[in-house]
Amino acid sequence: MSTPDVPPKTMNAVEITTPGGPDVLKLTQRPVPTPGAGEILVRVTAAGVNRPDVLQRAGGYPPPPGASDLPGLEIAGEVVAAGDGASRFPVGARVCALVAGGGYAEYAVVHESNALPVPAGFSDIEAAALPETFFTVWTNVFERGGLVAGETLLVHGGTSGIGTTAIMLAKAFGAKVFATAGTDEKCAECLRLGADLAINYRTQDFAKEVKSATGGGGVEVILDMVGGDYIQKNYEAAAMDGRIVQIAFLNGPKATVDFTRLMMKRLTHTGSTLRARPVAAKASIARALEEKVWPLLAAKTIRPVIHARFPLAEAAAAHALMESSAHVGKIVLVP
Amino acid sequence: MSTPDVPPKTMNAVEITTPGGPDVLKLTQRPVPTPGAGEILVRVTAAGVNRPDVLQRAGGYPPPPGASDLPGLEIAGEVVAAGDGASRFPVGARVCALVAGGGYAEYAVVHESNALPVPAGFSDIEAAALPETFFTVWTNVFERGGLVAGETLLVHGGTSGIGTTAIMLAKAFGAKVFATAGTDEKCAECLRLGADLAINYRTQDFAKEVKSATGGGGVEVILDMVGGDYIQKNYEAAAMDGRIVQIAFLNGPKATVDFTRLMMKRLTHTGSTLRARPVAAKASIARALEEKVWPLLAAKTIRPVIHARFPLAEAAAAHALMESSAHVGKIVLVP
Repeated sequence: MSTPDVPPKTMNAVEITTPGGPDVLKLTQRPVPTPGAGEILVRVTAAGVNRPDVLQRAGGYPPPPGASDLPGLEIAGEVVAAGDGASRFPVGARVCALVAGGGYAEYAVVHESNALPVPAGFSDIEAAALPETFFTVWTNVFERGGLVAGETLLVHGGTSGIGTTAIMLAKAFGAKVFATAGTDEKCAECLRLGADLAINYRTQDFAKEVKSATGGGGVEVILDMVGGDYIQKNYEAAAMDGRIVQIAFLNGPKATVDFTRLMMKRLTHTGSTLRARPVAAKASIARALEEKVWPLLAAKTIRPVIHARFPLAEAAAAHALMESSAHVGKIVLVP
Repeated sequence: MSTPDVPPKTMNAVEITTPGGPDVLKLTQRPVPTPGAGEILVRVTAAGVNRPDVLQRAGGYPPPPGASDLPGLEIAGEVVAAGDGASRFPVGARVCALVAGGGYAEYAVVHESNALPVPAGFSDIEAAALPETFFTVWTNVFERGGLVAGETLLVHGGTSGIGTTAIMLAKAFGAKVFATAGTDEKCAECLRLGADLAINYRTQDFAKEVKSATGGGGVEVILDMVGGDYIQKNYEAAAMDGRIVQIAFLNGPKATVDFTRLMMKRLTHTGSTLRARPVAAKASIARALEEKVWPLLAAKTIRPVIHARFPLAEAAAAHALMESSAHVGKIVLVP
C-alpha cells in the first residue's frame, strides 16, 4: 500500500442511526477505511444521493454482505492510497466510482475496476452524479433491454436521476424516447432533455398515449422503476417482441396481471439490481461505459442534470428533497 | 401448377359446426384446396391433435387471418401438387408440415418452407405427431429460453405432447430435465422418457421440490403452459438469470404476482405463440429442426410418443380423450 499523503485515522460520515425518516441520518465519526487487495482509497469530494439510499434509511434495503453500513452508492474524489495489486489509477488521480455503500463519508474504498476517470472537463460534483444512473441505465436499457438506434424507449420517472440519464443516453444512441412525469413542468423538462414525447401520468393514461403516438404499435423497450399497476400497462404499451426492464418498485412489487399480452406479443419482462452484483459484473459495465459513453461526456454531448447540492451534514435535507419528488435530476452531497 | 395425379374436387374434413364440446366436431365435405404461390397440396394420411384445436373448438382461439376455419395444426402425407414457384419437394414426396389450420381433412395446403421430409424410418402417423410439438419446443426452449447443455429445464405437463417432446429434446441436447405431472403413473412415464426428476403436482409443491433438488439454486429454464398460480411458483423455482417461457395458460392468464424475484434474480419471463407467426418465422424454425433435430430422429435417438390414433370421423372422441388428460404423448387422426 503506497501512502504518500497519509490519510487521517478518522473521518466524518453520515450514518443511519435507526430505520426511519430523513432525521435518522446523523453526522458521526468513523475510522477511515483501509483499501484491500485491488482497492483504492478515495478522498470523497462529492457523493450522489439515490433512491436506494432512501430505502436503506427506511430499513427496507439492507447493505449486501461485506458492504459498509453507511449509505451512499456513488462518489467522486481523489485517489489517496492503493491496496495490493491496485494499479489502474495513480495516487492523486481524480476518479468517480460505484460503491456498494459508504459513499456518505469523507473517505471511501472501492475496487479499482469499479472506478472510472472523471470525464474531461467535469467537476467532481458532476462526476459524482454519474455512476449510479449511468451504470444502471447502461446495463438495463442497452445490455438487458437491447435498445438499438431507431427503436423507441419509454422511461418512467423521466425527471429522476435515472430518467434524465436514460433520456440523454437513449437519444445519444439514436433511439426515440418517450418519458412519463408527474407534472406539466416536469414533462417540459423531459422534452428539453431530448425526449420526443412526455406524458403526464397524473392526467393521462400512459399506455393509451404510447399506443396513440406509435399508431398502435407500442414501444420496443420500457425502463420501469414503478411496478404495481404500471406492470399491466407496460404490457399494453410494449410493441411485439418488446422488452420491459424492472429496476425498482416505487408502487410496490405486487400486482394482479393478465399475462396474455406477454405471450401473444412475445414480450420479455426482466429486471436487475445493481448493488448486490459482484465486483466483476460491475467492472464489465464500467469498461463498457468507459468505451462507449465517456467519450460522449468528454465531448459534452451529454451532461448530468444536477438539481441540488448539500453539505454532508445536511444529508437529511437531501433525503427529504428526494422524497418530495420535487427535484429534476441529481442531488449531490459535498463532504 | 404440376398435377400428374389430379386430386378430387371435394374431400372429407372435420369442421367445428358451432363453438362447444367435442360433439360439435362433424364430418363434412369441403372443396379440395388449391396450392397458392410457394405452396404444396398434401394428401393427408395423418393429422396430429393439439390443445389449441380444443380451444378453437370451444370458441376461444379463432384461426388467424387467411387460415382455414377447419381445425388441425400438423399433418403428414404425400405431396400431390405444387403451386407456382414451389420446388422443395417433388410430387410424391412424403412430408410432414406445420399448418395454421385445416389439418383435419383429406387434403391440406401449406407453404413448402413450413414442411419437412418425413424422417427416415418414420411412419406417417409418427411424422404427423412431430411438427406442432417440435416447432414449439425448439423455438421456445432452445431459441427463446436459450437452454444449453449442462443447464436444467423444468417442463410442466411432462406427459403432454409438448412435455414428452421437451423431455426428449432437452436430454438429447445434454440438459438435465425436471418434469411435473398429475399422477404417479405419469411421473413414472416422465422418468422413462429420460427426465431426471418427476414431480407429482397434486401431492407435491413443485417449487419446493425444484429448490430441494438443486440445493436451493433453482432451474435455468422453465417451459410453462399452465400459468395462473404457477407463475409465482415459477419465479420461485427459477435460478438466477433463469428464463421462463410461457406457451399457454391452462390455469388462466391472470395471476396476482410478486415481481420481487423477477428483478432480484434477473429472471426473463417471456413467451410466444406459434400459429399466428408469419410463414417466414416458421420456415426459420423448420430449417433449424431439419439441421439439428431431424438427424436425431433418423438415428432413432428420439421417437415421438404416440398415445392413440382415431379415424378422422371420430375426431370428437380424440378431443374427449385430450380433455380427459388421460393420455401420455400424442393423439393422431387418420383420414
